[in-house]
Amino acid sequence: MQIDLNADAGESFGAWKLGNDEALFDFISTVNVACGFHAGDPLTIQKTLELAKQKSVAVGAHPGYPDLVGFGRRVLAATPEQVYADVLYQLSALAGFAKVVGLPLRHVKAHGALANESWKNVETAHAIAKATQDFDANLPLMVLPKTLLEVEAHKLNMPVVLEAFPERAYLKNAQLAPRSIKNSSIHDPAEAARRAVMMVKEKRIEALGGGWVDFDVQSLCIHGDNPHAVEIAKEIREALEAEGITVQTFSKP
Amino acid sequence: MQIDLNADAGESFGAWKLGNDEALFDFISTVNVACGFHAGDPLTIQKTLELAKQKSVAVGAHPGYPDLVGFGRRVLAATPEQVYADVLYQLSALAGFAKVVGLPLRHVKAHGALANESWKNVETAHAIAKATQDFDANLPLMVLPKTLLEVEAHKLNMPVVLEAFPERAYLKNAQLAPRSIKNSSIHDPAEAARRAVMMVKEKRIEALGGGWVDFDVQSLCIHGDNPHAVEIAKEIREALEAEGITVQTFSKP
Amino acid sequence: MQIDLNADAGESFGAWKLGNDEALFDFISTVNVACGFHAGDPLTIQKTLELAKQKSVAVGAHPGYPDLVGFGRRVLAATPEQVYADVLYQLSALAGFAKVVGLPLRHVKAHGALANESWKNVETAHAIAKATQDFDANLPLMVLPKTLLEVEAHKLNMPVVLEAFPERAYLKNAQLAPRSIKNSSIHDPAEAARRAVMMVKEKRIEALGGGWVDFDVQSLCIHGDNPHAVEIAKEIREALEAEGITVQTFSKP
Amino acid sequence: MQIDLNADAGESFGAWKLGNDEALFDFISTVNVACGFHAGDPLTIQKTLELAKQKSVAVGAHPGYPDLVGFGRRVLAATPEQVYADVLYQLSALAGFAKVVGLPLRHVKAHGALANESWKNVETAHAIAKATQDFDANLPLMVLPKTLLEVEAHKLNMPVVLEAFPERAYLKNAQLAPRSIKNSSIHDPAEAARRAVMMVKEKRIEALGGGWVDFDVQSLCIHGDNPHAVEIAKEIREALEAEGITVQTFSKP
Repeated sequence: MQIDLNADAGESFGAWKLGNDEALFDFISTVNVACGFHAGDPLTIQKTLELAKQKSVAVGAHPGYPDLVGFGRRVLAATPEQVYADVLYQLSALAGFAKVVGLPLRHVKAHGALANESWKNVETAHAIAKATQDFDANLPLMVLPKTLLEVEAHKLNMPVVLEAFPERAYLKNAQLAPRSIKNSSIHDPAEAARRAVMMVKEKRIEALGGGWVDFDVQSLCIHGDNPHAVEIAKEIREALEAEGITVQTFSKP
Repeated sequence: MQIDLNADAGESFGAWKLGNDEALFDFISTVNVACGFHAGDPLTIQKTLELAKQKSVAVGAHPGYPDLVGFGRRVLAATPEQVYADVLYQLSALAGFAKVVGLPLRHVKAHGALANESWKNVETAHAIAKATQDFDANLPLMVLPKTLLEVEAHKLNMPVVLEAFPERAYLKNAQLAPRSIKNSSIHDPAEAARRAVMMVKEKRIEALGGGWVDFDVQSLCIHGDNPHAVEIAKEIREALEAEGITVQTFSKP
Repeated sequence: MQIDLNADAGESFGAWKLGNDEALFDFISTVNVACGFHAGDPLTIQKTLELAKQKSVAVGAHPGYPDLVGFGRRVLAATPEQVYADVLYQLSALAGFAKVVGLPLRHVKAHGALANESWKNVETAHAIAKATQDFDANLPLMVLPKTLLEVEAHKLNMPVVLEAFPERAYLKNAQLAPRSIKNSSIHDPAEAARRAVMMVKEKRIEALGGGWVDFDVQSLCIHGDNPHAVEIAKEIREALEAEGITVQTFSKP
Repeated sequence: MQIDLNADAGESFGAWKLGNDEALFDFISTVNVACGFHAGDPLTIQKTLELAKQKSVAVGAHPGYPDLVGFGRRVLAATPEQVYADVLYQLSALAGFAKVVGLPLRHVKAHGALANESWKNVETAHAIAKATQDFDANLPLMVLPKTLLEVEAHKLNMPVVLEAFPERAYLKNAQLAPRSIKNSSIHDPAEAARRAVMMVKEKRIEALGGGWVDFDVQSLCIHGDNPHAVEIAKEIREALEAEGITVQTFSKP
């Protein structure tokens, strides 16, 4: 058995630091790198990719809304044409650094509010998927199962990587529990690790309020921007390995 | 005899329009497309490249300083590392759109204050040239002859396209006359056209204050952002063709 | 009888020009000046206020979402706290220039998508109104009648200026007809002028699809960003004056 | 004897935190608040002023170049007109929050590269001083003694607050030793405290390489953006108080 562990990275901006990429990269196998619209800047992107190469971590593009002050967490009523162009711009920029650093781009994953929109707005979902496919038909899109983004990616017949969130609660309909709901986030590292193992071994997880959500994912997403991110990543990885599960990227070498 | 005519393009931003790309593209053979740092935005880039394809104009990246409000015309004391990363980011983003539109990236040319710095600051010159070469060793850099940028490009053994400005006066040392000097700009279309023809046929031009500047260029740059840009472009092209000079891009098909 | 004519102004940005403030200011009595978040920059603000002073036009602040590339026309899911701070920041900045130029700030009016949100989202409406009142309890808020923004302003017991749009169609419920609906915009200057006169003299206008909308407004808003803005402003002003209606600002001298 | 201790504050941006204002404010008497161009955003400004009020710290505006990614530390070749408008915009915005929070604006101090330019470029110095004076003729400008900024402020006959840097070495000509020079920064808190006391009691400090610099300052500036800022501020304050020097703002109550 094997699984990929992914986390957001490269979320610093200019003089401002965010996250602890250096330590986090020791425990994960894939990173989603901010592309400069919601976080990141050219030099930060370059250093993040150089670190990823040194730590043998696979990299993908993590495009977001053009909203630095809101960190891409605020929905912006961009037209589908704007979303398409914004995503293409960001993943192209990242792909250039990846090429120069010698670490190919392995996937695309939308960030924050853009991701949230893509799960329930078919035009946004299509724009993200199409931009990815037009750039490179072999480039996988990382998607949350049972969302409109997954539907659109399948319609376009493009490669996908399904992911789940061990630190987030799920509703019975397989959607992430909104953060406004009580117990929507799992803060206990041991509990997050238990859920990670269950997600991989049993291909399901308990839903909030009862019942089960079934899915068969290739990657688990770990939050990189909280103070305990490294500790949680370590605990999850150790729990997976203790169960004989190999942590390695989904990417083809 | 043949020559390329190049002009800056894609300099609109969001709701703001600048230049008349649609009309200008009928008279030139190559465009330098703004990449979003001093002008341009993702959707503007896409539409500019689609127009270039439709009008059979070759495209290059036109990176600038990250200074929208100053249109990239103000020198910014960026470090060489920042210039390298900023240029790589911008040309990579443009290359992505070029790939999707089906119109390969043909060259890189620095914009405004970044170009000015590259002519006399060896570290800036090196950063721009190296970013271009690292991205694609076969991608030509468009340079002003007898500048530090030309020197650096030659040191890196990279392809270059030499250009001259029919609408700008030259000093005896082959540098462009600063705009603060009287008569540094040629506003008369007929005179600009005469100079364009001389630059191609005689491979030289009169210097301001007497004497001659010799150069052998592959491209003439026409300013795209003044109200008479289209008229001047038309007059220059017609004058060149009247002398039997073919206007066509330097780019390999 | 008298009425104010207001229009948006100062919507240029850096090298990019928008609108024809110089000509427009001859026909209107009040301007809403962009504050740098969706359009405008410090030097543009200064020049716009100097022009307003020279042309004896009253000025107000026109805050918008922080979205230059979208010109503030895209709804951004900002929190009420962010909207409050964004509006306070923008109107304070504008008030500083007004003070220096010697032309007091006369009102506040939200721009584009922020205005639209304020009509139907009570938290956004409250944030805009409260920021205005906290800055200066005597500063009027310009509002569309029969919207949540009007309700909030009244709850706060703050001065308001009611406005109507001669170039926009109204629904029976007194709301502006969405631009997606056919005939939602009036492009004929004569018809816009007729509607302006009716709005002032009869204090009502025909609704799209039949019926009437009643209101008693102190200002009519003219669009400043279309190619015929000046012509329409001129026609509306002349029609009003031909009916003996004085065009002058609502502001206290 | 008394002295003011000032530090930069409000240097967070959106999701990115910088400095430890909460702890630092316990040891200083005046803060220079970032205004949104090189750091800070409207909500950060508001919270910083609310914290300053709660901690009884006097506030001033800290305008910088419009360069977020460079944190205002890169010289930008802005025209004097642009510097004037940029400074007026930023201090006006800050003044609005100060008014609403109930904490009057006490001074203006340029940030980073803008400050450096103001010390040696007379046009930049004049633009900053004039914008401050035009906004409020009684508003003091905080200046480094024996710089062109001090000269310009005196020419304009405006109030100034002279400051010195206990953590920075000085050259014999009274200028700060460039950071590129060895020993230009004092990292030892005890040594910084010793220098602070000497600056206040003896009104002079040893120059790098020998000799003395004489000045009579009303404020000492403590760096707020290094990891030991709070510790250094505490040590300096305690050393001053141990010598019977009262730490309090220069501002009139």
